[in-house]
Amino acid sequence: MRILGLDPSLSSTGWGIIEVENNKVKYIADGFIPTDAKAAIGNRLALINKVLSEVIEVYRPDEAAIEQVFLNANPMSTIKLGMARGVVIMTPAQFGIGVTEYEPNKVKKAVVGVGKAAKGQVETMVKILLPGCKPKNNDSSDALAIALCHFQYRNAYGIKK
Amino acid sequence: MRILGLDPSLSSTGWGIIEVENNKVKYIADGFIPTDAKAAIGNRLALINKVLSEVIEVYRPDEAAIEQVFLNANPMSTIKLGMARGVVIMTPAQFGIGVTEYEPNKVKKAVVGVGKAAKGQVETMVKILLPGCKPKNNDSSDALAIALCHFQYRNAYGIKK
Repeated sequence: MRILGLDPSLSSTGWGIIEVENNKVKYIADGFIPTDAKAAIGNRLALINKVLSEVIEVYRPDEAAIEQVFLNANPMSTIKLGMARGVVIMTPAQFGIGVTEYEPNKVKKAVVGVGKAAKGQVETMVKILLPGCKPKNNDSSDALAIALCHFQYRNAYGIKK
Repeated sequence: MRILGLDPSLSSTGWGIIEVENNKVKYIADGFIPTDAKAAIGNRLALINKVLSEVIEVYRPDEAAIEQVFLNANPMSTIKLGMARGVVIMTPAQFGIGVTEYEPNKVKKAVVGVGKAAKGQVETMVKILLPGCKPKNNDSSDALAIALCHFQYRNAYGIKK
């Protein structure tokens, strides 16, 4: 059973894949999708959809997870994040994969143990929980943390495979 | 030369196609994409992408136009609109079609003659400017207005075909 974690942003969407077997997790892959800030927004979003579709075709996740939205003080930033998020949450659905949403604090609590954690702490714990994993950057590290959060909560809910 | 006008929303995205020939416009088609409020958001967005792709494949527009975003006082509404908008602006890009953005006031001014116009006024003018057209609803009427706005501005900019 594979989980795809997703950390959407227009400039660089992070993704991470973990595998669950006998209630244990292991690292499979991670990456991020940088887009050209000078390109048309439609093309940037199409690139996110294309690369994410390839990731799904290659790694065949069974379930996906994403952070619930972070409301920015700047409405235009909120709109931009919303646009990227729409494409990112749509892509697994195009493959029939369900996406579960988690509050940011829940993700940090699941990985670090407390709701408020620094970026560095999340990455450190991701490396400990997924031996052999060296996240490509903060975006993919956050995506792996979201996948780990989903692993913990689906177990708590009794959805084991 | 065909123009696709787009009025994005998660619950019902409007679309309209007009044709430009010898600097005159005529109505080709219009419609809207209702989505089930109880369905998962990823599935609703995937439906918008699928139907809009079919519209593009059937009517083969050369250019597309969309209103610039309307910032809602409610941040969650802004996020939802942003998600739908992301998918709607991405879809023409997947077919290599450029999307031009217009401020809402510009659209109303282009169609009605003033920047502040009631919904009914826009529809009335759309019917006058596109003889024979009976817009399916307000969403598709707004989408046709956006297409008409693009027609006027691309002429003003000297991009004639």
